[in-house]
Amino acid sequence: MIIDCHGHYTTAPPALADWRSRQVASLTDPAAPSPAPGDLRISDDELRESVESHQLRLMDERGIDLTVFSPRASFMAHHVGDFATSSAWAALCNELVHRVSALYPERFAPAAMLPQSPGVDPATCVPELTRCVEEYGAVAVNLNPDPSGGHWTAPPLTDRSWYPLYEKMAEYDIPAMIHVSTSVNPAFHTTGAHYLNADTTAFMQLVQGDLFKDFPTLKLIIPHGGGAVPYHWGRFRGLAMALGKPDLEEHVLNNVFFDTCVYHQPGIDLLLDVVPAENILFASEMIGAVRSVDPRTGFPFDDTRRYAEAGKLSAEDLAAVRERNARTVYPRLDALLRRQGR
Amino acid sequence: MIIDCHGHYTTAPPALADWRSRQVASLTDPAAPSPAPGDLRISDDELRESVESHQLRLMDERGIDLTVFSPRASFMAHHVGDFATSSAWAALCNELVHRVSALYPERFAPAAMLPQSPGVDPATCVPELTRCVEEYGAVAVNLNPDPSGGHWTAPPLTDRSWYPLYEKMAEYDIPAMIHVSTSVNPAFHTTGAHYLNADTTAFMQLVQGDLFKDFPTLKLIIPHGGGAVPYHWGRFRGLAMALGKPDLEEHVLNNVFFDTCVYHQPGIDLLLDVVPAENILFASEMIGAVRSVDPRTGFPFDDTRRYAEAGKLSAEDLAAVRERNARTVYPRLDALLRRQGR
Repeated sequence: MIIDCHGHYTTAPPALADWRSRQVASLTDPAAPSPAPGDLRISDDELRESVESHQLRLMDERGIDLTVFSPRASFMAHHVGDFATSSAWAALCNELVHRVSALYPERFAPAAMLPQSPGVDPATCVPELTRCVEEYGAVAVNLNPDPSGGHWTAPPLTDRSWYPLYEKMAEYDIPAMIHVSTSVNPAFHTTGAHYLNADTTAFMQLVQGDLFKDFPTLKLIIPHGGGAVPYHWGRFRGLAMALGKPDLEEHVLNNVFFDTCVYHQPGIDLLLDVVPAENILFASEMIGAVRSVDPRTGFPFDDTRRYAEAGKLSAEDLAAVRERNARTVYPRLDALLRRQGR
Repeated sequence: MIIDCHGHYTTAPPALADWRSRQVASLTDPAAPSPAPGDLRISDDELRESVESHQLRLMDERGIDLTVFSPRASFMAHHVGDFATSSAWAALCNELVHRVSALYPERFAPAAMLPQSPGVDPATCVPELTRCVEEYGAVAVNLNPDPSGGHWTAPPLTDRSWYPLYEKMAEYDIPAMIHVSTSVNPAFHTTGAHYLNADTTAFMQLVQGDLFKDFPTLKLIIPHGGGAVPYHWGRFRGLAMALGKPDLEEHVLNNVFFDTCVYHQPGIDLLLDVVPAENILFASEMIGAVRSVDPRTGFPFDDTRRYAEAGKLSAEDLAAVRERNARTVYPRLDALLRRQGR
């Protein structure tokens, strides 16, 4: 089977964005009441329509069996308001993703967003993480290394303030995808700079630190093919040496994984060439940042299955990238699939 | 011949760093006097020693004829102090690079750093730019898109506040390398994250804008192989489409060039495969971020000539990457070489 480990609910019914707009307006306009969670009403039919005409249609076209599905990354917008703001918003978004996954339990497995807020102790996110795992069956979580939205005011991911999250992740044996949200810094285009920068930044933070000595079972996915990392693999190997760290394989590759959200053949070829196959997880981030057809190939830029299969992987490695690695990195997904007889 | 378009004076005699330390101390300690420019005394012999045992030795070993040589990037540290601080510091650093180039006029061609300072109008840098071109024969300038040192408080490179610099560059027909300095943001490792992020960020700013409609002759070099850009070329092509821009070739590649500071063979192979040969300039940033020998190859990570020559370029394209493109992008370097009969 083919597991896409990186999908967001980018096509949620407009009522969700309307609710969020009212919430954001209430932060600055004393006359605008803050909406209650119950004000958001979206029927199951609306949910079905929102994915059947989009993600599910494309998954069927591309032969993708299951997507690890999380709230829209750019909508997390942790920089907005305070913890209460993020908390209400995350709860709603996670509930919707849970409902979609419950409607299509063989096609979507839920992953949670966290109610992060700039300057707020990450430990405050543990209850929502717990709720999503216990009540919704979340198989993963998205962790934003920059809740400020492009101002990068948070400490590195190796800082102890993040540890309560890692402890809970280790306890549940769920991985985190390290994924930022919208950039409000005019220097950074959200999907053209901020996302890729965050991937590179997070990886280098992990190279600099020794996080996995404290959390040997922790698993982190760096999306978008690892940002700039595989392209500069020699630089990172050399920097690890200069920092007195072991080889990257020993230092981070037991715990760090890259997805295949790289939207052209040469990029995927490099990824498959440089990074060990067991550290690569198939993904497309569809429907996401790049939605058009590449006029040079006639296929959508984000149809990453084509690139992965056209690469030089052995049949065994390709199977690992498409399915087996995801089962290893997401043990709760594997358990879910086994319960389904898959 | 082989022109390395990206070298910094990373091996300046310790007196330079001592002078800077005194300058920095004077900013916060009222009892510490600010050093005068004349307090820095470095003899020609010291300059010779500093490069003959380092850059020149390696250039000879690797067959590099000439390096475009600029002050040490991580030492620019534009975030320190104010404009007067940066002005005094840039003047000293530029003078040293000029002196080295004057000692070895066939081996080094000077490029200038600018006295940028966070929040200060870039137009204030025009006099130093003028001085370096007129008095020192600078063939290029390094432009820092983030003088704050990792806080990214400056507007995008397409903002009109940068235009006075571009006007002067266009007048002199000199290119700029877009190069940040030290990160003081704990989130960003300087050479493992900040440098690469800046490259990606700058490129995307240029994709978002229409700078080259206003400056059709402006030439900008994105170092470190373009950060994450070539690896994600499909993403950038798709984003340009989504933004309603022309093809990248038409939109930016008449004006944007990538260097070859990518420290492993697969990375260089991807760069040469994806980016047109006329947009690639040979460079190594030696002696720089990664100084060790790659134990897998037995050669230094930053010996980029090996990778470039092992790539799949035609002889003509390889000659363009090694020499001809640099002569085109740096017209004043070409003029200098011609005056030397080269």
